[in-house]
Amino acid sequence: MTDLATELALANRILAHEGVLDAFGHVSVRHPADPGRYLLSRARAPLLVEPDDILQFTLDSEPVRPAKVQLYAERVIHGSIYQVRSDVMAVCHHHAPAVMPFCVAGKPIVPVFHVGATIGERLPLWDQHDEFGDTNLLVVKPKEGRSLARALGRHAVVLMRRHGATVVGGGLQEVVSRAIFLCQNAEYQMRAYLLGSPAPLRGGEVKLAGAVNAMPSVVARTWEYWQARLVASGFWPPPSPRQRRTRR
Amino acid sequence: MTDLATELALANRILAHEGVLDAFGHVSVRHPADPGRYLLSRARAPLLVEPDDILQFTLDSEPVRPAKVQLYAERVIHGSIYQVRSDVMAVCHHHAPAVMPFCVAGKPIVPVFHVGATIGERLPLWDQHDEFGDTNLLVVKPKEGRSLARALGRHAVVLMRRHGATVVGGGLQEVVSRAIFLCQNAEYQMRAYLLGSPAPLRGGEVKLAGAVNAMPSVVARTWEYWQARLVASGFWPPPSPRQRRTRR
Amino acid sequence: MTDLATELALANRILAHEGVLDAFGHVSVRHPADPGRYLLSRARAPLLVEPDDILQFTLDSEPVRPAKVQLYAERVIHGSIYQVRSDVMAVCHHHAPAVMPFCVAGKPIVPVFHVGATIGERLPLWDQHDEFGDTNLLVVKPKEGRSLARALGRHAVVLMRRHGATVVGGGLQEVVSRAIFLCQNAEYQMRAYLLGSPAPLRGGEVKLAGAVNAMPSVVARTWEYWQARLVASGFWPPPSPRQRRTRR
Amino acid sequence: MTDLATELALANRILAHEGVLDAFGHVSVRHPADPGRYLLSRARAPLLVEPDDILQFTLDSEPVRPAKVQLYAERVIHGSIYQVRSDVMAVCHHHAPAVMPFCVAGKPIVPVFHVGATIGERLPLWDQHDEFGDTNLLVVKPKEGRSLARALGRHAVVLMRRHGATVVGGGLQEVVSRAIFLCQNAEYQMRAYLLGSPAPLRGGEVKLAGAVNAMPSVVARTWEYWQARLVASGFWPPPSPRQRRTRR
Repeated sequence: MTDLATELALANRILAHEGVLDAFGHVSVRHPADPGRYLLSRARAPLLVEPDDILQFTLDSEPVRPAKVQLYAERVIHGSIYQVRSDVMAVCHHHAPAVMPFCVAGKPIVPVFHVGATIGERLPLWDQHDEFGDTNLLVVKPKEGRSLARALGRHAVVLMRRHGATVVGGGLQEVVSRAIFLCQNAEYQMRAYLLGSPAPLRGGEVKLAGAVNAMPSVVARTWEYWQARLVASGFWPPPSPRQRRTRR
Repeated sequence: MTDLATELALANRILAHEGVLDAFGHVSVRHPADPGRYLLSRARAPLLVEPDDILQFTLDSEPVRPAKVQLYAERVIHGSIYQVRSDVMAVCHHHAPAVMPFCVAGKPIVPVFHVGATIGERLPLWDQHDEFGDTNLLVVKPKEGRSLARALGRHAVVLMRRHGATVVGGGLQEVVSRAIFLCQNAEYQMRAYLLGSPAPLRGGEVKLAGAVNAMPSVVARTWEYWQARLVASGFWPPPSPRQRRTRR
Repeated sequence: MTDLATELALANRILAHEGVLDAFGHVSVRHPADPGRYLLSRARAPLLVEPDDILQFTLDSEPVRPAKVQLYAERVIHGSIYQVRSDVMAVCHHHAPAVMPFCVAGKPIVPVFHVGATIGERLPLWDQHDEFGDTNLLVVKPKEGRSLARALGRHAVVLMRRHGATVVGGGLQEVVSRAIFLCQNAEYQMRAYLLGSPAPLRGGEVKLAGAVNAMPSVVARTWEYWQARLVASGFWPPPSPRQRRTRR
Repeated sequence: MTDLATELALANRILAHEGVLDAFGHVSVRHPADPGRYLLSRARAPLLVEPDDILQFTLDSEPVRPAKVQLYAERVIHGSIYQVRSDVMAVCHHHAPAVMPFCVAGKPIVPVFHVGATIGERLPLWDQHDEFGDTNLLVVKPKEGRSLARALGRHAVVLMRRHGATVVGGGLQEVVSRAIFLCQNAEYQMRAYLLGSPAPLRGGEVKLAGAVNAMPSVVARTWEYWQARLVASGFWPPPSPRQRRTRR
C-alpha cells in the first residue's frame, strides 16, 4: 500500500497547490485489491498530508484498524459513493473558490470549453436543506451521504448548495484533473457572464472532448506539470522521517 | 508572556500572509492573567512583527510601561472593545481587499456558505461620519472607539464604512480564522452577484455551522496549515537576535 | 539548431510562467534555414520543455525524423499556418484564462490600450462547429488546420470558439510578446465592461502603436524582464544532463 | 548621488514587485541639490534596475552626460512636469492593471477609502487624441509632455486615456505609496460597482485622511514592509558588481 499512499498524498498536495483544496476538503482512492475499502488521510490540511497519514476505511466509512487520530467528519461522502458506484475509484470533496459562487447563487455550471467537457453535460445541484432542514451543512450522517450519492447518480460531479462540490473519477489522476478543470471551467463561465450569455458545448461535443482528457498521454502530461509545480513550491516530497523527528 | 508574544507575532504574520492585513491593520490579544490589559505590537507592518515588538496596554489603550517606539494610532479600537465585551479575548482590525468593496458600496456581508457562518447572522455597518462628521476616518479618539464598540454590540464583526472591518473572537486562533473566513465569504458573495442573487444561510444553519469552526480539531487543522504556508514563504520563524544584529 | 532549440524552450517556459500556457498549448518557430520545416516540442507541458525535447516537422506536420515520443495532437495548427503565411516565423496556440471568457461568450477582443495594439485592429473568431459539426474541438485533421488558417487570413490572432486562440508573429520574441499583451488587453477590456463601454483604439492608432512593440529596444526590454522572472521562479535554466540523470 | 541612485533603484523594484510597473513604466526623482535635473534609469524593466543604470537628465529630458545606452522614449513626461511643478520631487508613469480598466472605459477614479485619499479629490483624465489626433499614444514630443503637465495641473494624479496614469509626489517614498494606493483604490472602486454605486469620500475627508498617509511614521512602516517583501522575492539587493561579472 506504500506506493498508493504516496500517490494519494501527492494527489492531496497537488489539489491544494492548484487551488482546489485549502485547509478543508479531501480526496480518497478505492483500495485496488479490495473494492470494499478506500484510502483517505486522517483529518489534516491536504497540502500537508504525508503517506503515513493515510488510513483504510470500510465502505461504511469506519476505519479498518482502530485509529487514535482525528478523522474527517465528512468521510461518509466517500463511502456512500463507493457503495453505489462500482465504477468510481476516486472521490474528491472540495470548496474551491472558483466553484463556490455557483453553489452560493444556485446557478448551474455547464461545460463551456473543450477541457471542461470532463465535467459532463449536466451537473446536479444538491441542497441538503431540501431533505434535512437546518443542519451545519456538513455531510456526516450515513443518510446524508446516501442522499448526496443519489443526487450524484451517474454523473461525474455534484454541486452542493452553499457548501461546495464532490467530484468522482475512474482513478486518482482522473479525479484530480477533473477537479482542476471544473475550476477552470467555472471561472471562465463566470467571467463570460460579464461579456454575454455563454452557450455550453453541445452534447456530442461533451462526449468527444471529454474522452480526450482521459487519454493516458494527456493524463501523463498534466500530472508531470502539476507535480513539477508542487516540487518548485517546496511542498513535495513530504518530509522524511528524519526531518520530522528533527522538526519536533 | 514570551509564549503569548510569539503566538501573537505568528498571528500577525499569518493574517498578513493570508491576505487579511497588509502594511496596515493590527491584531491584539487580551492578557490571560490580567483581563484589564491587552497585548499589541508597536506600529509595524504585521508581516514583520516580532515577539520583541509586543507591548502591553491598559484598556484605555495606554502602554503599561512608557514606550519609546511608535504606537498604532487606532489602538483604541482594541481597548474600547475589551472594555465592554468581557467575552472577547482577541481583536483584529483590517482593510482586507475582499471586504473593502462592501465597505465602499455600503452593502451588507451575509454568511453564504458553511465556513462563512463564523461571521454570524448579521454584520452591523458603522459609518464614522454619522456621529463625527468629516474626519480622517481613523478611529483614534476614545469616543470614536466607544462608538465603534457600541455598533459592534454582541456581534462578531463590524464593518466600517469606507474604512474596513473589525473582528472579535474568544481567542487568538478564533479571531484569525474568523477574519480569514470573512474574506472568503465576502469574495464568494461578491462573485455570486455576477450569477444571480445569493441567498444567505438560514438562522439555524448559521448557529449550527458556526459551531463547527470553533471545534478544537478544526482550529488545529487550519492553524497547522496557515503556519506551514507562512514557513514556506520564508516569513516564519522571525529573525533570531543574532540575525537582527547582523542585518543592522 | 542547439541555440534555437534553447530559445524555443525558453519561449515555452516564459509563456507558461506569464500565464499564457498551462499544461496545454504550444509554441513553434519556423526553421531559419529551411522555410519548409518548423521546430516544436514533443508533447509536454510548456513549463517543462527542454532543448532536447525540440523536434523538427515538415509543413505537413510530420516529424522529419521518426519519433518514438508522444507528439502534440494539434500540431497541424502550426504547419497549416506556415504553409500559407510565408511572413509568419512563429506560432503560439493557447487557452489563456484572460482570453477564454471571450471565446466562451463569442465576444470580439479589440485593442483597448497602446500595448494591446500589437494584436491588430480586428481579430477573427473561428467556430470549428460551423464547418465540421460536433467534434472534440481539437484541431487535428489537415482540413481543420487549413480552415483555421483561412480564418486567420492576414491577421495576427485568431480566436477559436469555446477553445482558445492562435497567435502568429514574425519571430519567436514577437509571438511571445503578442500572446502576453493579448492577455493583458483582454483582461482590461473585460474589466472595462464593469465600468462602461470600452471604445477601441482607432485604426491609425493601432498601426502607429503596434509598430512600437516591434522595436528591437522594446523587445529586448521585455525579454530580459520575462527571463529574469522565470529564473527567479526556478524554472530556468532547464536541468542539465547530469541533473536529469540524478533525478531519475 | 550613490545613495539616491540606490534609493531610486529600490523604488523601481518595489513598484514592480507590488504590481504597479511591469516591463514598462518608470519612476524618477528630482536632483536634491540641483532642481534643474532629475534622475531616471536607462530604458530597462523597473524590476531589474540597478544603481548603475541611473542617469541624470535636464528638465528638457536630455541626458546631462552623453549616454550610449537606450533611453526611455517617454522621459519628457518627467521633465515636463518638473518644469512647471516646483513642488514635485518625484514622478511615476505606469500602466497598472488596476487602473487600466478606468483608462479604457474613460471612467473617473475617485477616492473611496481612507488610504485612497492620497490620490486627491479629483483625478483629471487626459486624452492625447483630443489635441494630437492619431498617435502611437506615447508621450514623446515636448509638446505632448507639456499638454500632459497642463492636464495634471495642481493635482496628484492624471489618468491617460487608453494608456495609463502619471503620479507625482513631494518625494520618492510619497510617489511610491501614492501609486500603490491608487491601485488599491481603483480595485476596490471597480469591485464596488458589482455591489452598488460607490460614493466617494467627502472633500473634507480627503484632506484629513490624505494627510495621514504623508506622516513619517506611516511612510516608514509601508517602506519597511514593501522592501521586506521585495527582499523575500529575491529581487533585492541588486546583483553586486562581482555577481554581474560572473553572470555574463
